[in-house]
Amino acid sequence: MIILGIDPGLAIVGYGLIKYSGSIIKMLEYGCIKTSSKTHLPQRLEIIYSELTDIIREYRPDEVAIEELFFNKNAKTAINVGQARGIEILACVHQGIDLYEYTPLQVKQAIVGYGRADKNQIQETVKLLLNMKSIPKPDDAADALAIAICHSSTQRFKEEFKLK
Amino acid sequence: MIILGIDPGLAIVGYGLIKYSGSIIKMLEYGCIKTSSKTHLPQRLEIIYSELTDIIREYRPDEVAIEELFFNKNAKTAINVGQARGIEILACVHQGIDLYEYTPLQVKQAIVGYGRADKNQIQETVKLLLNMKSIPKPDDAADALAIAICHSSTQRFKEEFKLK
Repeated sequence: MIILGIDPGLAIVGYGLIKYSGSIIKMLEYGCIKTSSKTHLPQRLEIIYSELTDIIREYRPDEVAIEELFFNKNAKTAINVGQARGIEILACVHQGIDLYEYTPLQVKQAIVGYGRADKNQIQETVKLLLNMKSIPKPDDAADALAIAICHSSTQRFKEEFKLK
Repeated sequence: MIILGIDPGLAIVGYGLIKYSGSIIKMLEYGCIKTSSKTHLPQRLEIIYSELTDIIREYRPDEVAIEELFFNKNAKTAINVGQARGIEILACVHQGIDLYEYTPLQVKQAIVGYGRADKNQIQETVKLLLNMKSIPKPDDAADALAIAICHSSTQRFKEEFKLK
């Protein structure tokens, strides 16, 4: 089964693709989609939709795992990233793929077993689990791989986390 | 020229279409797209995209005016409505239509000349300007018509408000 992990964003969208069968996980691809703040919002959203659609068409993931957004203060940032996340979800729906969402805490717990792990511990574990030579860069891509791994390891509970 | 006004939302998206030439404005259509909170988010976003695309294809507006979002406190609501607004923008971009955005204050000022007008004054003025027998319902549709009128009356300054 192929899973696409998405770390949602407007300026930078991290993505990571893994393939797993049983307990064997393999990294297929990772990277990020970037849009410039100098580009008009409608075009930025269109770039994200279009590039994410291309990635989905190339790798044909069976399921998508996307991180939930949390913002305490800045509603303006929440709106902007929310707008982009909507697009990221729509691109998956348009390709007929089921989506699941996880909180950052759930991702941490799935990767290293407890929620207080720091970013570096998560990234080292991702590297280890995927047999990579170095930590995947940028952080957004590493996060996306972590989200995909989180989903693969929570498959048996997946109905519980299905994005409502 | 045909203008589509959009009052962005997730549970309810108001839309209003007007046609104007010179100082003559005519109401073409108004209404709202509703999605249930019982429906999964990906499907809600898909419904909004699909229904809005149908409306654009039917009326072929030349330009779209959409309200800016403002939230002081609730980041969760900001994210949800932001996700839907992203979809509403994408549907317009995919149909090749230029978008413009206005703050609620700009809409009020364009309709009744000052920013302290209450909702009822705005709606009465919309009814008057569009020669309607009664105030358009629901409020979201009336707001969408107000946004469309706002855009028609600020055409000469339009480059200034072009959605960046």
